[in-house]
Amino acid sequence: MVRESEIRRNEVAVIPPEPSDAGLIFIGRIRTPWTSRLMAPRQGRPDGPVCRIEIFEPWQAALDGIERFERLEVLYWLHLSRRDLVRQSPGDNGTTYGTFALRSPVRPNPIGTSIAMLVALEGSTLLVRGLDCLDGTPLLDLKPDRTLFKPIAPEQPGDRQTQA
Amino acid sequence: MVRESEIRRNEVAVIPPEPSDAGLIFIGRIRTPWTSRLMAPRQGRPDGPVCRIEIFEPWQAALDGIERFERLEVLYWLHLSRRDLVRQSPGDNGTTYGTFALRSPVRPNPIGTSIAMLVALEGSTLLVRGLDCLDGTPLLDLKPDRTLFKPIAPEQPGDRQTQA
Repeated sequence: MVRESEIRRNEVAVIPPEPSDAGLIFIGRIRTPWTSRLMAPRQGRPDGPVCRIEIFEPWQAALDGIERFERLEVLYWLHLSRRDLVRQSPGDNGTTYGTFALRSPVRPNPIGTSIAMLVALEGSTLLVRGLDCLDGTPLLDLKPDRTLFKPIAPEQPGDRQTQA
Repeated sequence: MVRESEIRRNEVAVIPPEPSDAGLIFIGRIRTPWTSRLMAPRQGRPDGPVCRIEIFEPWQAALDGIERFERLEVLYWLHLSRRDLVRQSPGDNGTTYGTFALRSPVRPNPIGTSIAMLVALEGSTLLVRGLDCLDGTPLLDLKPDRTLFKPIAPEQPGDRQTQA
């Protein structure tokens, strides 16, 4: 079963520093069918339910042109997640893994990333498939999927830089 | 040419809210060959130079098992980027695009994401290829590439949920 917020057998917590190195702005809110961690999918699926991404002002003008991309990278804040575990037991069976070897929502900076299929843009709301987060999750960013985006800026010296 | 921090013709800036909705912890630092925006690649390449990702305490224990993944998702803080543009002109030619239709570092929450090829793990330092960020960029998170990671937690009701 997916965690509410308990620490499980063999998991390792640390005392994290104050989260004051940089500050975030919630730029929107995500509406999904899932109101409990115990129901949400472990991973989004491209044929999953249509979810809504509502964009707040003053950011709505930043949506212009987004409909050209069939897949979007969505970054959001996992607002219910604890941040202090360095080893976790996803199976709740005593076997643990380092946090950076997992895609668990429990992380020092609980930022979730998904690839969403864009279904429609209705005013300042995006309809998408492929998410797995809870209803009400705060939005941090939207970007074109990296595999679809070609840089518009002129070429830079680093573009061709390789190394054996 | 890539922007230092000027506003260009036809670009649109807004007055952003205070960035106080949530706080970040810098968990490491990225070492790359690029010390200027005018030299860095526009996008990382899988055969690019080897870069170093140094992990700070108390997060080093969270690396355990990461070497099983040949590709990692890297999240980092674009610490030199302005955050107030909703329309940008990457070509510096007067043509503008909405920020969410670009992968520019200039965003309300300047979080960069890359897929890095793991070359080696040396103590608490990862050697990777595929990055395009500046030397000294603060690290926010490391996750297995989503296409390589299979959830370990038991199945959830939402896993099979689809919708026409």
